[in-house]
Amino acid sequence: MPSSVAGPEIERLIQLLARLPGLGPRSARRAALTLIKKREQLMSPLAEAIRIACERVTVCGTCGNVDTSDPCTLCRDPRRETSLLIVVEDVADLWALERANVANARYHVLGGTLSPLDGVGPDDLNLERLVARVAEGGIAEVVLALNATVDGQTTAHYVTDLLAATGVKVTKLAHGVPVGGELDYLDEGTLAAAVRSRTPF
Amino acid sequence: MPSSVAGPEIERLIQLLARLPGLGPRSARRAALTLIKKREQLMSPLAEAIRIACERVTVCGTCGNVDTSDPCTLCRDPRRETSLLIVVEDVADLWALERANVANARYHVLGGTLSPLDGVGPDDLNLERLVARVAEGGIAEVVLALNATVDGQTTAHYVTDLLAATGVKVTKLAHGVPVGGELDYLDEGTLAAAVRSRTPF
Repeated sequence: MPSSVAGPEIERLIQLLARLPGLGPRSARRAALTLIKKREQLMSPLAEAIRIACERVTVCGTCGNVDTSDPCTLCRDPRRETSLLIVVEDVADLWALERANVANARYHVLGGTLSPLDGVGPDDLNLERLVARVAEGGIAEVVLALNATVDGQTTAHYVTDLLAATGVKVTKLAHGVPVGGELDYLDEGTLAAAVRSRTPF
Repeated sequence: MPSSVAGPEIERLIQLLARLPGLGPRSARRAALTLIKKREQLMSPLAEAIRIACERVTVCGTCGNVDTSDPCTLCRDPRRETSLLIVVEDVADLWALERANVANARYHVLGGTLSPLDGVGPDDLNLERLVARVAEGGIAEVVLALNATVDGQTTAHYVTDLLAATGVKVTKLAHGVPVGGELDYLDEGTLAAAVRSRTPF
């Protein structure tokens, strides 16, 4: 778009919006127009919300979650089981597990997975702190809730080896048929894993 | 998501992002996480860009375009043909025509189309100003660049009737085969229009 059309301020807004995941150049333009049209209802509140989040949001020094306090709300929650620690790759995974309301546990966010091709090594992950937390004692079980991808499983193996010395019980998520899934549409790997791990009815 | 996970500030940011077109609740969460992770490179600049746009962007009193000045850059551009006026539904359409670099003309943004079902009547559109601009003289031709939808065409007919008294030449965009389009995939209406409006080779 020639810069003369919309002025550099709008151009800049579009460029920054286009860097959000899920928005391309075209949808960023639509989003910018929506913001401009809904100035009072959306644009001002969003500017304020981003400013506040920018100021206050911090990464929890204990688990790696993002929150406005450090330690984060989850780490400070006295009702949570302290003996169960769920290791996730990313904050998004932590949120997904919390949405599922699946475990009353504490978390540890690695901040990525080992990926030699992308140059991500053990030092780039939040692993030292994980070992330290387990070594401090009080944790009976570490659940590796990592993605069922090659990188995720490589990381899981690495973490297992790393924690072997501490003697803590390390478990991983079950593989199997997704709830609501149809066998016909599942890949062979999942079907094989589901048969291998079959449970009594 | 239970509000205890991410804190009300992040929650609020996600809610506002989810109101942008093209972002649902899930992609808004991803966008919020991206913002938090790229605080320096993306979050601060975006907050600043939205704040500046919020302060400075205004609607041009002449044509209805959005810009940081009133009259807007297009209305003030002395190199533009003043005798040709292109009527569009929305600022996004104006931007699309400018991107195509198709006409060195001025614009008039209606701000919508007549839609009795949605309760949009002539008073909701920027029509009075359009008639006034044409009545002021100096405009030889009004091009109705409205969407080829029922609402768009209804509006085109209404605008034509409205401008009949001024005696200005009113034209509309050609219907036909889109450039790069294959006949096999086109609907009957477009094909019929293309045959009716065939041109000498």
